[in-house]
Amino acid sequence: MGRSPDRRTFAERMHLFYQPELPDALFLPEDESRHAVKTLRLNNGDPITVTDGQGNAYSAVITATDPRRCTFRVLSVQAAAARPFSVRVCVAPTKSPDRIEWFVEKAVEVGIERISFFFGQHSERRHLKTDRLEKIAVAAMKQSLQTYLPQLDEPVSFGELLKSVSEEQRFIAHLPDNEPPVGLAKVAMPGGHYAVLIGPEGDFSTNELQQALDAGFRMVTLGNTRLRTETAALTACQYLNFLNQ
Amino acid sequence: MGRSPDRRTFAERMHLFYQPELPDALFLPEDESRHAVKTLRLNNGDPITVTDGQGNAYSAVITATDPRRCTFRVLSVQAAAARPFSVRVCVAPTKSPDRIEWFVEKAVEVGIERISFFFGQHSERRHLKTDRLEKIAVAAMKQSLQTYLPQLDEPVSFGELLKSVSEEQRFIAHLPDNEPPVGLAKVAMPGGHYAVLIGPEGDFSTNELQQALDAGFRMVTLGNTRLRTETAALTACQYLNFLNQ
Repeated sequence: MGRSPDRRTFAERMHLFYQPELPDALFLPEDESRHAVKTLRLNNGDPITVTDGQGNAYSAVITATDPRRCTFRVLSVQAAAARPFSVRVCVAPTKSPDRIEWFVEKAVEVGIERISFFFGQHSERRHLKTDRLEKIAVAAMKQSLQTYLPQLDEPVSFGELLKSVSEEQRFIAHLPDNEPPVGLAKVAMPGGHYAVLIGPEGDFSTNELQQALDAGFRMVTLGNTRLRTETAALTACQYLNFLNQ
Repeated sequence: MGRSPDRRTFAERMHLFYQPELPDALFLPEDESRHAVKTLRLNNGDPITVTDGQGNAYSAVITATDPRRCTFRVLSVQAAAARPFSVRVCVAPTKSPDRIEWFVEKAVEVGIERISFFFGQHSERRHLKTDRLEKIAVAAMKQSLQTYLPQLDEPVSFGELLKSVSEEQRFIAHLPDNEPPVGLAKVAMPGGHYAVLIGPEGDFSTNELQQALDAGFRMVTLGNTRLRTETAALTACQYLNFLNQ
């Protein structure tokens, strides 16, 4: 459902493939080659669309159906403009990995520029397979017919994360103790570059909250219900997308 | 994260339990009894909060720790006001059941009044276990510390579904063929009662689209990316919640 016209032409032009090495590499990576040749049974001369994950959609035709290295010839390239705003969600990995995998899939589908992971003082989870998340992000980008692959950062400490934030609109999803709660919807301004911090199941530590406030983050809530970590992370993303429509 | 003060007192008053037969039945259902007695090891006199799923939160103390029928005495009841708007999402079950289960969990977490299912002409899935979805909805209600359990409807045909819609703000997630697309964010008005139709993976049939238009539904898009059925359903819910914050 809900496909915009240019994306529909993508779909009509066959499946969307991903080759980050474009325009140099005029062949599909091995897994994409297998998919094109074995699963979709594409033949020489069949039209495909390949993206570099940086906004470019290459219209191409297949020139050799090698299941390990399917080559193609580029006919034309179409560059999509980046969004006039950017959403970065910084989240602590959840106890169960499938919940953070779900978040990555859905955030990429609805639109996000960058996903950063951190281990907080109250994080129960201390490791994260970002290579698997990268695959999920690529699949979601292709599924939703987008040509930008969001940046996925390796997990870092909370302190390192704060140092890495250059976005000017900074929010931390947490309920203030001494003042009335403020909804993200109320304080975020359209057209900006946003960074939102989402804590682990064990929540942020007092120390982490203070560090964030010192770094210019504003405490916000994401509605009136208590949200799981991954739900809060996606909700922040959805609200900021909505704000900019 | 993001818990509002009164919900935090819920949490401090121990876990939230569900007994739809309140105020008559002063005991927990069998699965909730087992959870209270075996898992949480609650004892006589321990305080609990029990909701009837209709907005009432009963503060109670346990009077008998029977793992099949844990009884309690009510100390006080607190009624929460219903939201001044209502969101109803009508969605076709997805091919893989876990995707619709995921939608139900997340929609209940972020806030929804009613979820309806229908089988469209292009639906690949023709059966749906609503009893399992009901359990997921109850768990999500308790998890997010809410006292209203959204209504889950048994699947019906598309025609029957349209007859059942009384909400005045009616939208169908689909791209119009002959006119420019309109975002849900642009046309939905705050404070209303909303019904949104989300099609199956195979999309709506031309016939279904015409029926919906005849029934006063407006075609809307949910952003600029192609969304999976369950992602579109949650996005519609999130956008309407956001609109009313």
